[in-house]
Amino acid sequence: MDKKLTVGIVGTGRIGKVHTMSIMNQLPQVEIKAVTDIFLDQAREWAAQSGIKTVYNDYKELIADPEIDAVLVCSSTDTHAEIAIAAANAGKHVFCEKPVDLSVEKVEAVIAAAEKAGVKLQIGFNRRFDHNFRKVKELIDNGTIGDLQILKITSRDPSPPPIEYVKVSGGIFMDMTIHDFDMARFLTGSEAEEIYVAAACMVDPAIGEAGDVDTALITIRFKNGAICVIDNSRKAAYGYDQRVEAFGAKGKVEITNDYPSTAVWSTETGVYSEKPLYFFLERYMDSFAEEMKQFVNALISGTDTPVTGFDGLQPIKLGLAARKSVAEGRPVKLSEVE
Amino acid sequence: MDKKLTVGIVGTGRIGKVHTMSIMNQLPQVEIKAVTDIFLDQAREWAAQSGIKTVYNDYKELIADPEIDAVLVCSSTDTHAEIAIAAANAGKHVFCEKPVDLSVEKVEAVIAAAEKAGVKLQIGFNRRFDHNFRKVKELIDNGTIGDLQILKITSRDPSPPPIEYVKVSGGIFMDMTIHDFDMARFLTGSEAEEIYVAAACMVDPAIGEAGDVDTALITIRFKNGAICVIDNSRKAAYGYDQRVEAFGAKGKVEITNDYPSTAVWSTETGVYSEKPLYFFLERYMDSFAEEMKQFVNALISGTDTPVTGFDGLQPIKLGLAARKSVAEGRPVKLSEVE
Amino acid sequence: MDKKLTVGIVGTGRIGKVHTMSIMNQLPQVEIKAVTDIFLDQAREWAAQSGIKTVYNDYKELIADPEIDAVLVCSSTDTHAEIAIAAANAGKHVFCEKPVDLSVEKVEAVIAAAEKAGVKLQIGFNRRFDHNFRKVKELIDNGTIGDLQILKITSRDPSPPPIEYVKVSGGIFMDMTIHDFDMARFLTGSEAEEIYVAAACMVDPAIGEAGDVDTALITIRFKNGAICVIDNSRKAAYGYDQRVEAFGAKGKVEITNDYPSTAVWSTETGVYSEKPLYFFLERYMDSFAEEMKQFVNALISGTDTPVTGFDGLQPIKLGLAARKSVAEGRPVKLSEVE
Amino acid sequence: MDKKLTVGIVGTGRIGKVHTMSIMNQLPQVEIKAVTDIFLDQAREWAAQSGIKTVYNDYKELIADPEIDAVLVCSSTDTHAEIAIAAANAGKHVFCEKPVDLSVEKVEAVIAAAEKAGVKLQIGFNRRFDHNFRKVKELIDNGTIGDLQILKITSRDPSPPPIEYVKVSGGIFMDMTIHDFDMARFLTGSEAEEIYVAAACMVDPAIGEAGDVDTALITIRFKNGAICVIDNSRKAAYGYDQRVEAFGAKGKVEITNDYPSTAVWSTETGVYSEKPLYFFLERYMDSFAEEMKQFVNALISGTDTPVTGFDGLQPIKLGLAARKSVAEGRPVKLSEVE
Repeated sequence: MDKKLTVGIVGTGRIGKVHTMSIMNQLPQVEIKAVTDIFLDQAREWAAQSGIKTVYNDYKELIADPEIDAVLVCSSTDTHAEIAIAAANAGKHVFCEKPVDLSVEKVEAVIAAAEKAGVKLQIGFNRRFDHNFRKVKELIDNGTIGDLQILKITSRDPSPPPIEYVKVSGGIFMDMTIHDFDMARFLTGSEAEEIYVAAACMVDPAIGEAGDVDTALITIRFKNGAICVIDNSRKAAYGYDQRVEAFGAKGKVEITNDYPSTAVWSTETGVYSEKPLYFFLERYMDSFAEEMKQFVNALISGTDTPVTGFDGLQPIKLGLAARKSVAEGRPVKLSEVE
Repeated sequence: MDKKLTVGIVGTGRIGKVHTMSIMNQLPQVEIKAVTDIFLDQAREWAAQSGIKTVYNDYKELIADPEIDAVLVCSSTDTHAEIAIAAANAGKHVFCEKPVDLSVEKVEAVIAAAEKAGVKLQIGFNRRFDHNFRKVKELIDNGTIGDLQILKITSRDPSPPPIEYVKVSGGIFMDMTIHDFDMARFLTGSEAEEIYVAAACMVDPAIGEAGDVDTALITIRFKNGAICVIDNSRKAAYGYDQRVEAFGAKGKVEITNDYPSTAVWSTETGVYSEKPLYFFLERYMDSFAEEMKQFVNALISGTDTPVTGFDGLQPIKLGLAARKSVAEGRPVKLSEVE
Repeated sequence: MDKKLTVGIVGTGRIGKVHTMSIMNQLPQVEIKAVTDIFLDQAREWAAQSGIKTVYNDYKELIADPEIDAVLVCSSTDTHAEIAIAAANAGKHVFCEKPVDLSVEKVEAVIAAAEKAGVKLQIGFNRRFDHNFRKVKELIDNGTIGDLQILKITSRDPSPPPIEYVKVSGGIFMDMTIHDFDMARFLTGSEAEEIYVAAACMVDPAIGEAGDVDTALITIRFKNGAICVIDNSRKAAYGYDQRVEAFGAKGKVEITNDYPSTAVWSTETGVYSEKPLYFFLERYMDSFAEEMKQFVNALISGTDTPVTGFDGLQPIKLGLAARKSVAEGRPVKLSEVE
Repeated sequence: MDKKLTVGIVGTGRIGKVHTMSIMNQLPQVEIKAVTDIFLDQAREWAAQSGIKTVYNDYKELIADPEIDAVLVCSSTDTHAEIAIAAANAGKHVFCEKPVDLSVEKVEAVIAAAEKAGVKLQIGFNRRFDHNFRKVKELIDNGTIGDLQILKITSRDPSPPPIEYVKVSGGIFMDMTIHDFDMARFLTGSEAEEIYVAAACMVDPAIGEAGDVDTALITIRFKNGAICVIDNSRKAAYGYDQRVEAFGAKGKVEITNDYPSTAVWSTETGVYSEKPLYFFLERYMDSFAEEMKQFVNALISGTDTPVTGFDGLQPIKLGLAARKSVAEGRPVKLSEVE
């Protein structure tokens, strides 16, 4: 490639910074030309620190830049759809963080805009690119464990987000389980048919007062027959807990967490080992870089992105159905929210 | 103790033999005076082989023997209640295999008979006495993991039973999950309120034709707030799979399977270890001995048995509710089957 | 078998009791007719407790009993040879605890006596019958790891024996490493050629004052080319540590310890698991039963015993060479002590 | 820091490239101004590919560049000393790959040159910066396992180097064990007193013909009393094997390998997991970056480098003593080679 691919990043919060660093450190064929953020000072500070030349006043300026080939949408969830659509309309390829939006209609609008403009769209479900989950996928796909029958996903955070975030995030199913919904689709290779949720507020009453739950057992039936259970908690005392077990006609595969070291030490009082890597930045850093590599590769080679707009849409429906299941205390078909 | 405790065993099939050997090898204070079985030849052969002096023609003769202090009911499930009630009425202490019976009424009748007669009654939920499950119980009870929030039980058999057995056993929830229902009650220390089952026939169509399922994900809400998921399969290609994970406000505890050895070997083609101990006789042999010890101890010391008639009753209700959930595709309250 | 095999046990200390229980619980074809011990009260108490009918005043009376087919020599080490020789001369099969004796000449005399009398002789190297070590042996013998190149044996006790015992036991190489010497021979399937020991007194100065070491790294070259390292400590703070790693041309196999349960628990302060089974009685109980079964089987079937007199002799030579290596600070050839 | 630190790299082989990438990706405060290599084409290609502006014709030109603050010596071992001394004399800080040289005198000359010039010198013992080894060091240093008594280091390569390399590398003790010698010093925090090696040629006869061994068990006594055993093999069929166990008065700590994923899969034929990360580039990539960070940090902050010239010297002495032990079949004191 003679010319570098040029990207602009909208949003210089935590995840925007992660993508900046992945590109700078591992994607020499990409240039980050410009950033912007509704907190302009923060954008300016980050640009100065990381050597990005241009800071635009708003996302509209950024997508108006004719040199920019692709836009990374890393702003707050409520602005994703608007920016992604505008970027697509301006002919930019779009990488959009998850969830695309809390409404099915808006996500569909993003997909439609990208299709109409003929630009690539990738959704930020980074866990698909993690070494552990990839290995599970490989062992399912190559037939090692036979037809998938039971899928168990454990996904627990080390501590709940601020209550203010809970109030606007769309709740646990939209801001946390969304990743697990995607993982369930990814690993089963199928679409959900029905969902049932047993949930409660066990971690912090303030979460319940904000109208959300913090602990959930989620059963999903997939069209190919597989049954999946996801267990979520907003607070695991021992840290970030991200595991999967896939059970099939010919066997099972389990993945555990990643740890700071493999050390096991034994004393008079017991046998000890390390707690898991603390949170998603520590645990999934490599997967963020890998998803960006594959996004860039899709743009350069003209192939499909590995996580499509449709992949961004389906988990939203699962989130809506999960909420309905909690509200009505019964299994809910996906068709009820479509 | 000057005088030995004298027991009679009704049923000399697999489990009757297990109890015989536990007593002979590890309970010198107990004498097995007599056995019987509807297959009398089998009873005679076993008695000869194991040095038991008397073989009665039927259970009625056995419970009429005034020297017998306690009766172990190890016959087929459909005869448990009749024999247990008769034994209690004759003033014998009763150890009854699980499930006591498939009907709530009959189990209640057994409990009532034992209460009226003032005899001890213990139900054969041996897994409570297993080293791994006991450790989980200990760590829950001593507060190490805090208030229990999520309980996950994996229980998979190496291969399905004969179809003829499936037809009369009461189905997967009565003959297999019954142990997991008991374990869930044991570990939560609470009673179930509601159950939801996502199940299917994935292992063998003949099981479906017999009106049963062979794969199930079972969600149970307990009165103390804990949520439990049990996953069952009639056939795990790699063998008997018996694990628990208990997650609470302060941490979690996990137990894995037991293995023939701790060996791990590594070659050019990969890293290998042993499959789990094959089936329940290999896996739970020590727990069978321990439950018998504690039964005998309760008789000798006059204390309560560790697994009561009520403990035998509740899993039956859970089994009935589970069936109803499958049939009606909805969560079922325990009160609906009481 | 119509007639039971009849045995007498000389020595009713810890190991004599272990063998009594193995036979009573698992070898119905064997009758323990008589016991004796230099502490006669102890022998009488044990006989009463375990239902053994006869207590002889000394080992000579016991071996004079014409009904006794085999004698288990479980007395203190300094009496092994005398009793074993007398028993063999009386035509009794002999099971002798390890070490047979601290002198090569006496062990050879025991072997000669058994050969002359045409009786079976088995030495009590029970670890060969342990599930973990057996698996290592199997994977070496079936070629899984290829030709053995490096063998690493870890053998550490939870705490040192009383100083009085250290003074008479022959020292660490004779009372503790003796098992590891046997294991090295068993696993390599070869004889030692040269030994080098780096040792020190690190655990308790009193052990040094008694003329012994308590910590040792022992290198052994075997005739088939394999190199072996044994590391010993009289005191592992976390308990009994018994592991092996065998490395060969095609791979390796490692075994770890056995544990009271498979539980792993995680809290805010870390991840925990159980310490190993405390000491040899907990860890090796099954292997004691297995060695006794195979001894009895050899007697009944007329086959060779699985641990011969020669197997009892070689570790003694290794122990003597190890002592010499410590004293002289150099590698010592086995031929120097033969 | 206003001005960037400027470095030049001598040698653009494998390790030179690793350091280039570490600096480019993770050390924005450092500029790589120039490279050189005796294979100039290779240096030019790498410079073009990685955006390095200058390629000098030889190391003398490079160290003559007044803008260069520090030189990374990544050339072949036989040239390390000459280049490092020249760089020091030119007032450049020096990072020198291991082994510095195969002769004690030359290493001492490098140390003297750096001292005289007042420049920093760091030796490339990267494993000290690895997450696993660091954790062992931490648990030793903070007293968790008490005074160190036994240290066991396993270090096995996936396959032997080319015979041509073996002939010039100084042999296994200089090119492979050198890392383990450093690790033993690092973890014990002490200096070696005596070494004994049991070694042989088991992997490839050609290695023996080249005058080297390929399998070794190395015992080292340290001045603080700790005893260490290193086991080396040029060929582990299952891949790169890098483990440590440290045993002390209060406990032990063990580290295992790193793996591509945490997946464990179970089928009818067994239980499987991944082989270790293939070789040192995969296994130690993070540690190479970390050592470079700490080198740069020492230059910027004016503090001591974490791995000094003396740390480069001592393993050479151990290597020489190891060779002598093999040749003479006896323990060799370090003082014999000083």
